[in-house]
Amino acid sequence: MPNEKIPYKIYLNEDEMPKTWYNLRADMKQKPAPLLNPGTHKPMTAQELSGVFCEELVKQELDDTTALFQIPEEIRSFYKMYRPSPLVRAYCLEEKLDTPAKIYYKFEGNNTSGSHKLNSAIAQAYYAKKQGLKGVTTETGAGQWGTALSMACAYLGLDCKVYMVKCSYEQKPFRREVMRTYGASVTPSPSMDTQVGRKILAEHPGTTGSLGCAISEAVETAVGSEGYRYVLGSVLNQVMLHQSVIGLETKAALDKYSVKPDMIIGCAGGGSNLGGLIAPFMGQKLRGEADYRFIAVEPASCPSFTRGVYAYDFCDTGMVCPLAKMYTLGSGFIPSANHAGGLRYHGMSSTLSELYHQGLMEAVSVKQTEVFEAAEYFARVEGILPAPESSHAIRIAIDEARKCKETGEEKTILFGLTGTGYFDMVAYEKFHMGQMEDYIPTDAELEECRNALPRID
Amino acid sequence: MPNEKIPYKIYLNEDEMPKTWYNLRADMKQKPAPLLNPGTHKPMTAQELSGVFCEELVKQELDDTTALFQIPEEIRSFYKMYRPSPLVRAYCLEEKLDTPAKIYYKFEGNNTSGSHKLNSAIAQAYYAKKQGLKGVTTETGAGQWGTALSMACAYLGLDCKVYMVKCSYEQKPFRREVMRTYGASVTPSPSMDTQVGRKILAEHPGTTGSLGCAISEAVETAVGSEGYRYVLGSVLNQVMLHQSVIGLETKAALDKYSVKPDMIIGCAGGGSNLGGLIAPFMGQKLRGEADYRFIAVEPASCPSFTRGVYAYDFCDTGMVCPLAKMYTLGSGFIPSANHAGGLRYHGMSSTLSELYHQGLMEAVSVKQTEVFEAAEYFARVEGILPAPESSHAIRIAIDEARKCKETGEEKTILFGLTGTGYFDMVAYEKFHMGQMEDYIPTDAELEECRNALPRID
Repeated sequence: MPNEKIPYKIYLNEDEMPKTWYNLRADMKQKPAPLLNPGTHKPMTAQELSGVFCEELVKQELDDTTALFQIPEEIRSFYKMYRPSPLVRAYCLEEKLDTPAKIYYKFEGNNTSGSHKLNSAIAQAYYAKKQGLKGVTTETGAGQWGTALSMACAYLGLDCKVYMVKCSYEQKPFRREVMRTYGASVTPSPSMDTQVGRKILAEHPGTTGSLGCAISEAVETAVGSEGYRYVLGSVLNQVMLHQSVIGLETKAALDKYSVKPDMIIGCAGGGSNLGGLIAPFMGQKLRGEADYRFIAVEPASCPSFTRGVYAYDFCDTGMVCPLAKMYTLGSGFIPSANHAGGLRYHGMSSTLSELYHQGLMEAVSVKQTEVFEAAEYFARVEGILPAPESSHAIRIAIDEARKCKETGEEKTILFGLTGTGYFDMVAYEKFHMGQMEDYIPTDAELEECRNALPRID
Repeated sequence: MPNEKIPYKIYLNEDEMPKTWYNLRADMKQKPAPLLNPGTHKPMTAQELSGVFCEELVKQELDDTTALFQIPEEIRSFYKMYRPSPLVRAYCLEEKLDTPAKIYYKFEGNNTSGSHKLNSAIAQAYYAKKQGLKGVTTETGAGQWGTALSMACAYLGLDCKVYMVKCSYEQKPFRREVMRTYGASVTPSPSMDTQVGRKILAEHPGTTGSLGCAISEAVETAVGSEGYRYVLGSVLNQVMLHQSVIGLETKAALDKYSVKPDMIIGCAGGGSNLGGLIAPFMGQKLRGEADYRFIAVEPASCPSFTRGVYAYDFCDTGMVCPLAKMYTLGSGFIPSANHAGGLRYHGMSSTLSELYHQGLMEAVSVKQTEVFEAAEYFARVEGILPAPESSHAIRIAIDEARKCKETGEEKTILFGLTGTGYFDMVAYEKFHMGQMEDYIPTDAELEECRNALPRID
């Protein structure tokens, strides 16, 4: 019984930690579609992108052939402050579910940002610093990304301007205060500071904002400020690259104990966590070395994979960003106000979109009451209070483990536990009081958003 | 340079984790004074205590000769869910301070309760379960202990009733909601549910409560309910015993790299963290095997070591608990309303009190603005958002490291980072806005509280 020797938590030693990031696109025969200039509909050049992003990050964004990128020494040093993250064998959950399945989760919440976002935040801040920039701008929704970027900027002495979706800014004052503790300036979006913000406020007075809108404001501010660039916490290829550290650590930890997962489950908003977790495993699948089931879990209230279309779309509401080909609900889509937590972006990583399009991964959507049920169940059994986002993956992992109980199959289930829910207690409270509602957009609503997609020849 | 090989974080393997708790009292020649019956002023017997505490815990409470207690297998299993906690070499802090000092901290915040309190919560819940009890009652101030106990009870399927100091209940709704997520019932104290609560409310209408008052209510409820016992998260000998796991892990990790600290620093409220951290090191000192400086850090607004008296006192406001000999400000002392976070108990562990009385450890008090300054500095440099309580230790660790810079001494500083500050953002916000005030009780105030001490012949 080799599994009996597997500890509750598998930690890598420092010398076992990844020294390179893995670029999944290098192993894809059919590459993800390129970003297009929104004016000319021609692929974005490095030069065009370098007005928005740091030079090194532009290279990473456009490079779809180099498989391995060295992780700079300074970033590896920072990683050591909170990595390796533990790979946990969910013995307690298995026992409680009375399942023959073996369940593992990679826990990325053990840092102050409360999620995996820090993996890319430090990388992007590092390249900005290296380029001699003064600072960076970004948007944040639920707040994990903004917190992560604030931490990275505080560490490197960079200025950090965060546009925080207004409803989050108001509902999550503590998140805002954490960012300020790390020295960031935090502005509720839409704001009167930018042209695009003023325009949106004029058209939709009283709007509580959206990620797409906050992105437009952050980009406008970066482009208009000397020595600033814009950074983004998900969706982009560069982010997938940095987040591959999650999957690489996971695989190294599993390999130490000769464990091979049958299925890998992750929540999917823009795709940063899922893309990072599955990267090395999907690489094996693409190279024909191994096979796995990959399952993306998204909210029923923002179902870009399961009910979106695969098409070029705007990445932001203000339509100032490049066009990306992705599974999308349309850039005008805003999830219902009762949707809790993140995973509210209208689109999905181009890389994951292409993999899904090729049938290499599956996607399911779940209702939020089912998600919080799983979250509470997990908290009581495994001790960790999960973020609503992460709990999407927990929901499906539990469902799959229960199926194993029915069939008697001893499958190995791996899922990504992306973060903690300490700043989501308003949503938990709603759930406890029986006041949480589910919302599923109607076909007509989705149809209307799709009609606004740009036409690309 | 052996230190160059020391990783950022030293983790123990599962087989290196402590299998026994260490009872510091066994090595003390002059033992801590016994608990006294508040009516007869005679030492409390096991029988008297067993109406309040579980039998096994009573044994641990009274035993001052057995040095090592086996940690039951079930508790060790639970420990594996979140232990070993990392011992961190604060390379970034050292660099930022430009100090020749070597700084280590034992980080106990990497679990959902957000602090070290879980170490004793699971032990106390386990013995309650083993005795066949239905549930336990307790009080909580800042909320860490209540959260920890809720988690332990959820894991074991025990009922958990928490009396939460009213001002915390109102100011920290998220803490309350975390406890509810773990299935606990949470009542603001003072409440109308108990005699003592009703009495206090009649005498002090509009009071926002105190720990001493919440303790009285929890004890009354336990004693009056079939199948319930009372549990306490600090002060008691049994808690010191369970918390020794912190120091034992720390010592094992340091020994692996042949590191010997010159000074060991911890925050002190009731003494649970400090007592646990220093236990094995103090044991060496008592046995004449090694010498260390031990520094207890307490708030200037609740200075039981530095301005209290060493005397028998009530442990609670309602005076229903046994009397304990300790450094105390008097059971009527309530810290100023502007005091943020925990460390607000009027007394101190009897064991630590006796050690301090014998001159075996030092104590200092710090103002809370100085504490939050250190907290923010630490957060930006080391990435972890510390709890206000823990930041007392950070403050003195930084001060000591700066002294080393002046003198050029390469001292090794170890401190306890007991928890995270995610639920303390109201206090952080006050600090950022420049609205945080310091309060130091006057001699006259302290004198008045001292006058209410019981007279023991």
